[in-house]
Amino acid sequence: MFLYNHFNINEKGHLCMDGVDTVDIAKTFGTPLYVISRKYIEDAINEYHRIMRANFGDNYTIAYASKALSAKFIYDIIKDMSVHADVVSGGEIYTALAGGMKAENLHFHGGNKTRNEIGYALSVGIGSFVIDNFQEIAIINDLAKAKNITANVILRVKPGVDAHTHEFIQTGKEDTKFGFGIKDGKAFEALNAIISSENLNLIGIHCHIGSQLLESKPFAMAGGIMADFMAEIREKYGITLPHLIMGGGFGVKYTYSDKPESLDDMIKNMADAIKSSCAKNNFPLPHITIEPGRSVVAPSGITLYEVGTVKELPGIRNYVSVDGGMTDNPRYALYDARYECVIADRAGENRDYLATIAGKCCESGDLVTKDIYIQKPQPGDILAVFTTGAYNFSMASNYNKTPRPPLVLIENGKPVLKVRGETYEDLIRLEI
Amino acid sequence: MFLYNHFNINEKGHLCMDGVDTVDIAKTFGTPLYVISRKYIEDAINEYHRIMRANFGDNYTIAYASKALSAKFIYDIIKDMSVHADVVSGGEIYTALAGGMKAENLHFHGGNKTRNEIGYALSVGIGSFVIDNFQEIAIINDLAKAKNITANVILRVKPGVDAHTHEFIQTGKEDTKFGFGIKDGKAFEALNAIISSENLNLIGIHCHIGSQLLESKPFAMAGGIMADFMAEIREKYGITLPHLIMGGGFGVKYTYSDKPESLDDMIKNMADAIKSSCAKNNFPLPHITIEPGRSVVAPSGITLYEVGTVKELPGIRNYVSVDGGMTDNPRYALYDARYECVIADRAGENRDYLATIAGKCCESGDLVTKDIYIQKPQPGDILAVFTTGAYNFSMASNYNKTPRPPLVLIENGKPVLKVRGETYEDLIRLEI
Repeated sequence: MFLYNHFNINEKGHLCMDGVDTVDIAKTFGTPLYVISRKYIEDAINEYHRIMRANFGDNYTIAYASKALSAKFIYDIIKDMSVHADVVSGGEIYTALAGGMKAENLHFHGGNKTRNEIGYALSVGIGSFVIDNFQEIAIINDLAKAKNITANVILRVKPGVDAHTHEFIQTGKEDTKFGFGIKDGKAFEALNAIISSENLNLIGIHCHIGSQLLESKPFAMAGGIMADFMAEIREKYGITLPHLIMGGGFGVKYTYSDKPESLDDMIKNMADAIKSSCAKNNFPLPHITIEPGRSVVAPSGITLYEVGTVKELPGIRNYVSVDGGMTDNPRYALYDARYECVIADRAGENRDYLATIAGKCCESGDLVTKDIYIQKPQPGDILAVFTTGAYNFSMASNYNKTPRPPLVLIENGKPVLKVRGETYEDLIRLEI
Repeated sequence: MFLYNHFNINEKGHLCMDGVDTVDIAKTFGTPLYVISRKYIEDAINEYHRIMRANFGDNYTIAYASKALSAKFIYDIIKDMSVHADVVSGGEIYTALAGGMKAENLHFHGGNKTRNEIGYALSVGIGSFVIDNFQEIAIINDLAKAKNITANVILRVKPGVDAHTHEFIQTGKEDTKFGFGIKDGKAFEALNAIISSENLNLIGIHCHIGSQLLESKPFAMAGGIMADFMAEIREKYGITLPHLIMGGGFGVKYTYSDKPESLDDMIKNMADAIKSSCAKNNFPLPHITIEPGRSVVAPSGITLYEVGTVKELPGIRNYVSVDGGMTDNPRYALYDARYECVIADRAGENRDYLATIAGKCCESGDLVTKDIYIQKPQPGDILAVFTTGAYNFSMASNYNKTPRPPLVLIENGKPVLKVRGETYEDLIRLEI
């Protein structure tokens, strides 16, 4: 009935999440509201552990991609589940440490790490840097030398796999700001630079071929290319690198028409390609790291809104306005993203009303999603939008001077406030 | 040489804004940094006054559209310049009042004003509500009745003018969440509802046909349609409405290829159409309000970044990374927006380097602008992006846990900090 199993309907006909009535949650905490299931996150991580172990034994790491949702409570959950974290900024490092992560379990990504951020990362003892460009090779080496330490680094390469996703979230192809090309020889130039840097310790290579991928094929292709490249590095430099980081991008179901291959298949096909390349090249199977973000948190979350204006334009469309929108979820405006929604008060009724969910901003592009079926809405209803756990809280803005919503985590069958909502006073507190 | 006259180059070859060296500003306040010219804003408003007076005598109002940039300092500037303000949320009302605006000079817009916001607006004595939908007619009337007051209201209608701009910023056409259609009869239904509401005082009609319009024709078309509709209202109800609000949308030059018609022509052609309709219908010329936002503040502002990674992909493109991006300016990601930029340190040199300016987020779509000519960049250079005064500060986010930049206002030849930048501590202060 629902996209995910942590939702059901109670005797009042209300949508429940982990058994908790979402209409009650909305009454208690107000709307708009982010609601996250701790259990879903834990289950998703355990599922990754099961599948990775089945394919790689104990020779793997799961690193949560913080940018999907970076807040202290996330790190508090994952820190005890043998999970590392990717971070992409000083702010994410700060938040991860505040959430209880060990610095050695953080991997610092990013296409333009600033000197200050690199210094900060070194000072807290970050686990590794994922090297994206020549400039940072020099900066990390300089700063590490000044501290008389050695920094673990991983080279990000572009395997040249086109992952057939939205243009804005393709990152493995050649025309991207990220990483070094294998084909154009830049990756070898970067290896030369790293190897000749005294205070850098090269431990592996990294790729990330895209986001929200629904097929295993690009993962398998990239796995083979990357493992071949590790053998090529051994041939050229005599170095057997111990780590291969395959990135994230495992897709989730946003709508009923999304049909991702199973995670089992995605990872098994990737693993098979890596193993096959290693066997062919007589290369020892490296330690494999994957970096899921969206697939851990997106399905864990919903957003609850109150329905306001309902505007029916005959022959055109029905605009159903909610008390949030692009300020708490800019993904429609950015990527034309689609979501499933229900009227939480009558979640069991037929969804036979074709609606376009509009936000409250003074901006035509402020939609939550377009042309989806929901129960016939009434002003005052609670609308639940599914699969908003990733890239919603993390991308929120104060456009139209809109306060950002609070976030509650359902744990042990109870909603617990983890981030309080902004007040009007908060909106101008930085103004002088 | 530059798009706007408040820029020049000093003896060091540095870009200056209102005579102040932008490289010095960047050194003093850090990067990324929003810099706004008070003088440009004042000049733009005075120009609107001159043109409106030339066309309408004293029978006009300029209302600044807050959503372009809402912060206390803006209201502090405009409150003494006979300028009203549009607001689109409780947060903008709060900010405008905190900035010294009188509530009676605020006009409350928005497609889904919440009950709380309407109550707040009534409690502070807002000047008028721009009515967008049936639900709010009832809510405003109820809440006004409970307070035993009468609320001034203005009906937002869709003149059905397609303003040929980006889909996301078209708002006058029929398929939009905003306002009531004239053609489909909804506007008359709304008038019936308003007129029969005891605590509402209808004072005029409103339209807003789009954003960033570079031609006068749609304004003229809309002006004629709206004035005709006022005569139709008189005919049907015997009411001669005193106010016609023509919205905003006056375009600015973002790049050298933008060639907007002069503001003189835009407003004169609109005025002529309104006057011609009024003459034809023997209707007294109404009080005309316009609502410029972008055109007042966009050109007033620049963003200063430090250049980081420069990545040249032969035959593909040159990625020049800066220490900000979609977090302080999401307009490329949202609208494929284009900007002109210069290396502020060498602003007088030829711009012969084709660059794509990339932000520091871990997201391929995080570009500031694509394929523009700048001076050959070096890491450490200051890059100035022009025309970022509107919809940058107001749309900023903390994506990738990126602190939002500070904002300085140049006034009396000096940069003055008006909004302080966020710290890492600020990023998690709402977390529990």
